Amino acid sequence: MNLPSGYRYAAVYAGIRKVDSDDLGLIVSDTPAQAAAVFTCNAVQAAPVRVAKKHLKASKGKASAVLVNAGNANCATRTGESVALASCKAVAKALRTKTEYVLPASTGVIGVELDSSLVIKAVPNLVSRLSADGFDAVARAIMTTDTRLKAAGKEFQLGGGAVRIAGMTKGAGMIHPHMATTLGFLMTDAAISAKWLAGMLSVAVGKSYNSLSIDGDMSTNDMVVLLANGASGVTPNSEERTMVRDAVTSVMENLAGQIARDGEGARKLIEVRARGFKSDEDARKIARSVANSLLLKTAIAGNDPNWGRVLAAAGYSGVVFDPAKLDIYLQDHLVCRGGVAAPFEEAELKRKLDHPDVRIRIVLRGTSKCEARFLTCDLTEGYVQINASYRT
Amino acid sequence: MNLPSGYRYAAVYAGIRKVDSDDLGLIVSDTPAQAAAVFTCNAVQAAPVRVAKKHLKASKGKASAVLVNAGNANCATRTGESVALASCKAVAKALRTKTEYVLPASTGVIGVELDSSLVIKAVPNLVSRLSADGFDAVARAIMTTDTRLKAAGKEFQLGGGAVRIAGMTKGAGMIHPHMATTLGFLMTDAAISAKWLAGMLSVAVGKSYNSLSIDGDMSTNDMVVLLANGASGVTPNSEERTMVRDAVTSVMENLAGQIARDGEGARKLIEVRARGFKSDEDARKIARSVANSLLLKTAIAGNDPNWGRVLAAAGYSGVVFDPAKLDIYLQDHLVCRGGVAAPFEEAELKRKLDHPDVRIRIVLRGTSKCEARFLTCDLTEGYVQINASYRT
Repeated sequence: MNLPSGYRYAAVYAGIRKVDSDDLGLIVSDTPAQAAAVFTCNAVQAAPVRVAKKHLKASKGKASAVLVNAGNANCATRTGESVALASCKAVAKALRTKTEYVLPASTGVIGVELDSSLVIKAVPNLVSRLSADGFDAVARAIMTTDTRLKAAGKEFQLGGGAVRIAGMTKGAGMIHPHMATTLGFLMTDAAISAKWLAGMLSVAVGKSYNSLSIDGDMSTNDMVVLLANGASGVTPNSEERTMVRDAVTSVMENLAGQIARDGEGARKLIEVRARGFKSDEDARKIARSVANSLLLKTAIAGNDPNWGRVLAAAGYSGVVFDPAKLDIYLQDHLVCRGGVAAPFEEAELKRKLDHPDVRIRIVLRGTSKCEARFLTCDLTEGYVQINASYRT
Repeated sequence: MNLPSGYRYAAVYAGIRKVDSDDLGLIVSDTPAQAAAVFTCNAVQAAPVRVAKKHLKASKGKASAVLVNAGNANCATRTGESVALASCKAVAKALRTKTEYVLPASTGVIGVELDSSLVIKAVPNLVSRLSADGFDAVARAIMTTDTRLKAAGKEFQLGGGAVRIAGMTKGAGMIHPHMATTLGFLMTDAAISAKWLAGMLSVAVGKSYNSLSIDGDMSTNDMVVLLANGASGVTPNSEERTMVRDAVTSVMENLAGQIARDGEGARKLIEVRARGFKSDEDARKIARSVANSLLLKTAIAGNDPNWGRVLAAAGYSGVVFDPAKLDIYLQDHLVCRGGVAAPFEEAELKRKLDHPDVRIRIVLRGTSKCEARFLTCDLTEGYVQINASYRT
């Protein structure tokens, strides 16, 4: 993947995690970038979320760096804001930039004080290691229960030349669609104002991070940041901005898919599509309700074509519809026609469900083309094992 | 437990379940009883739900019998209504009562045709076995993934003499609070009109079945029926009706607790209490959000005092509150004071969490006494194992 120009990255082990594995990452734009971000809607907001919001407001949508740590959420802590602020100050000083140009982000356990000296002591080393090749190192440093590094990118031609977008993200639990979920950092070298970036991010988040649920739990630390430093020298015109928006969306959909596929304990990515309902919003409610059904997610874990659970979850979505007009497809096999069982070859379908990609399609007969797509993963014993002893 | 007078019960194996274990139950009142019921809010309603609603309307709130089967939900089936109706007719004929005096109920897998001849052939045997002692046999016949029979009762004195209430119910998955959840049958020998019964049931359901969640999935077959046949000869006056209502509520709270404790794969009953919020409804939203958090439920399974997950779930409940005023107690230990960690003895609390009853208390400091209580259970590997292969 060709990374966008004008960004450098570094990661180190600062001693925040218990295990000796990089836990502090830094993303730096060589010149202050235009910036937009979306944050968790949780009433309980971690200190870095509060500080990042303030910084983005004070800088009027500019940022030079993102400082992110794993292993501690810096949430529900006495010293949270002062720790986040002191960390940003240390980075700003080392980079000779303004404190409000540094956006802090954290992920990890809630309610444990984060020792700011660990971060501050690590900053010189972190800054000295900055390099254009450090992208993967940062993507690895933000992993918590993730089993795989999550990154995606795109390069494309505009009238003025080539521009690039790259993004990294982490999962894999406490993922639920209310604004951004999880952490995500996206960089482009196109020149785009913070105002346009915010619009693009809003559209892209709706189709990606907000159409994704692992376990229905919304984090206190969620944040997705989009930076544009203009280092390509290319300023998209209004038509080309749509292309950039679509590219950002596609990169973020890719990242969201990686999160779902690597959901805690997950063996499968489940894509739920709903179509034919009165509005896109109704279709979304149906798809979301099915994607959130534990019974459905466990059935898929067991390769069980239990379409009754799809029907039941559609039924309690809050959307009014006539079940007698509903068709359900599993792996493109019609399993429910007009609200009742359709004949299908059980053994063959079980075999097809034993696959890392599962497609569920819910179609209400009629003329409406309104539709929605939601991503989730199967629910396995692994999810329970991971989360029963996460903290200790 | 002293059962209410004037009811008889029977259960047989009709061949609906795959395993040879009673799957058809009948509850009969010797004289037509006054009746009230609450039903699932799911847009997809099983045939017995639709037929029971019609019967209750046609009979103007009277019922002589409840016919219930396990092993097949009779939902999303071509022949559903005619099967439910034919079954009721056969029972009505054998009991020499009206078809609309028979309420059908089903639980089991969705989308598989129920063979009415299995039910009709079993009716003579079922009716011949009716006896006042058959209560437990019916309670056992409605069990699906339940590991324990669920029954509760109460006897108490009114001015006119003693009256009795008895109830049976089943769990243990697809349990979520929207109207009644699961199946529940309650009988009293007090003389109470259908109108008063409906009011009592509504209050009792709110405090019991609607304050309970196992997995967030709402069934297509939920139904709770309350019968009053007056066989005690006691007609409560208006003050005594309040006593009856409280007794019905207490029996149903008892049954709801049994459902939570026996949630699929559960080892623990979790009681979540929220207090000090602006309204009872806000407290309810908080308690419900915490009770539905998979992350919290898995933490409790692992005896992990992870109060951060309680805080996060309270935060995304939709209720606006100041986290700095929030205290959280686990097993009566203060673990979070004013939104940040309170010192507690980790090893001791872990030991105390290793208990079949777990209490979580969330208190917003201030003068409000508004509060709510919600029941749930821990989430273990067992839930996944049970539901990954339920159908096959």
